[in-house]
Amino acid sequence: MISFFDERQLRHAPLRELHNGAWTPYAECADRARNIREAIGTPAPARDFGMAPIEAVHDADYLAFLKGAHAAWRAALREDDAIAYTWPVVRRRKLSLDRIDARLGQYSFDASTPIAEGTWDGAYWSAQTALTALDAVLAGARTAFALCRPPGHHAGADYLGGYCYLNNAAIAAQHAHAAGAGPVAILDVDYHHGNGTQDIFEARGDIFFASIHANPATDYPYYWGHADETGSGDGDGATLNIPMPRGTRIDAYLAALDIALARINDWGARLLVLSFGADTFSGDPISHFAIETEDFATIGARIAALGLPTAIIMEGGYAVGDLGGNVARFLSGFQD
Amino acid sequence: MISFFDERQLRHAPLRELHNGAWTPYAECADRARNIREAIGTPAPARDFGMAPIEAVHDADYLAFLKGAHAAWRAALREDDAIAYTWPVVRRRKLSLDRIDARLGQYSFDASTPIAEGTWDGAYWSAQTALTALDAVLAGARTAFALCRPPGHHAGADYLGGYCYLNNAAIAAQHAHAAGAGPVAILDVDYHHGNGTQDIFEARGDIFFASIHANPATDYPYYWGHADETGSGDGDGATLNIPMPRGTRIDAYLAALDIALARINDWGARLLVLSFGADTFSGDPISHFAIETEDFATIGARIAALGLPTAIIMEGGYAVGDLGGNVARFLSGFQD
Ligand SMILES: [Zn+2]
Ligand SMILES: [Zn+2]
Repeated sequence: MISFFDERQLRHAPLRELHNGAWTPYAECADRARNIREAIGTPAPARDFGMAPIEAVHDADYLAFLKGAHAAWRAALREDDAIAYTWPVVRRRKLSLDRIDARLGQYSFDASTPIAEGTWDGAYWSAQTALTALDAVLAGARTAFALCRPPGHHAGADYLGGYCYLNNAAIAAQHAHAAGAGPVAILDVDYHHGNGTQDIFEARGDIFFASIHANPATDYPYYWGHADETGSGDGDGATLNIPMPRGTRIDAYLAALDIALARINDWGARLLVLSFGADTFSGDPISHFAIETEDFATIGARIAALGLPTAIIMEGGYAVGDLGGNVARFLSGFQD
Repeated sequence: MISFFDERQLRHAPLRELHNGAWTPYAECADRARNIREAIGTPAPARDFGMAPIEAVHDADYLAFLKGAHAAWRAALREDDAIAYTWPVVRRRKLSLDRIDARLGQYSFDASTPIAEGTWDGAYWSAQTALTALDAVLAGARTAFALCRPPGHHAGADYLGGYCYLNNAAIAAQHAHAAGAGPVAILDVDYHHGNGTQDIFEARGDIFFASIHANPATDYPYYWGHADETGSGDGDGATLNIPMPRGTRIDAYLAALDIALARINDWGARLLVLSFGADTFSGDPISHFAIETEDFATIGARIAALGLPTAIIMEGGYAVGDLGGNVARFLSGFQD
């Protein structure tokens, strides 16, 4: 399978995150991408599609914030990476705020996603990698793999969180939609709910979003991804959430996957953007499903059987040593 | 002036807070209350009004969370104080969540307000102290001072934040309203906007809320307290926010105060709940107004001239060594 990666994605390297009440080393480390790159051969470099396809998904004020946040943090004489400490949980609205701490909370939803010196570069090139893979599919490739990192599916139109800054899958899906390749469906098979992607499209009926993920009552991101979230307005019915319990094994997983694939098929999708996280792996240090390495090929093949042109966008997966092997196995399922 | 305090308020003693991206010692320390107590003589103990007046303001699920959160944190084998790391910034709604980290974010808006072992006891007795002072006013006292700590004005009906857990001023105001002592007005003269109090009453027309505070574009709590927030629905026009710039001195402060007092008078208030923070003091370590110790008597006298029965509820003030003197000076303004 043709795959894409840009070295500049490695410039994003936060030091630590706040998790379960304490600082821990940053789980979404650059070595994740290196490990995958080694396992899948030699990815082609990303092309630069510029800001327009990013601006088609993210708000201009958020993008300006994201570009300038680390410099503003340093200008305020703060050390290390930029991180918020307070958030607008009620009556959130557009506001013109001066202080960097205020703006960090305005544009984020957790304390686990710092903005480091190289974050903008890394996120920008991660998005370009997604667009490059999508473009290959538009040009006729049956499938293409974007080794995106940082990941994207937790990022909303105007907020970061969950290690995500720019929503690579949403940017690719919107780009495909704008190119007339739709109807476009997004399938999210990361361990965690793709709350940012859902939020971006939840009021739209022209892009379908389906996610299979750990029950948010027990697992991040907690506040989104519950089964009763099915879209609103024009998007009513165009969102499908299938929460699964901790300990889920391949058989139960495939049953859920079949439901999601049938819905995508019934909806009439002509192109698939696939948010793929390998953190469903049994050995993932922050996740709790029981998918084994060999299962990933089965999952990949099941999705491939849908028969849609597919851009595969890398999301999570934190068992760094096993990550490349799991990704390669998943991709192999598309190549039968 | 008659004053009230309960020793059990001192049981609340978090270790640290996340502020500007790093852990700092907890600014809202128990010594604040000790310093005030020494300066104002011997406060009378609080009476116990039970849970009903607290439940009249706060949601039952939030109260159950607050009582049990620290034990749940320890049961999850976490160390130190309970603190959230992710928050529902969009589509916040009632959810049944299992994990303590999920519930911490569901019921808070910052990472600066830990739940320690003695937090429930401290917050409960702080609320009872407010109710005891309010009761003294209902019984005929012209003014009464509640040495509340932890403070309350940042806490909403179902969330904590800004060192606040139970909204003492809102609980007192609602209790006065229920007792038929209204119309009740709340005036908040803490350095920071009383966002929790505003949120609790913002859709109600029967309790007026006015606040003079640092411009939220530069100062906590950032997302609330802007001048265009004037209430909604039945409460349209019953909220008044007067943001003031950093560096505000007594003359400008009194001009703003006169506007707020005139509105409260015009509105027909018959009882005043006063959220008083001494963090407007020039020497406050986390605030940026230029009110001097002698100014506090002037401010107190100006509010006293409104001629309303007044329950004074202690909020912020972090220049611990000067705190008692500033509070005593403020209270002296009511006794001419
Ligand atoms: Zn994930
Ligand atoms: Zn304050």
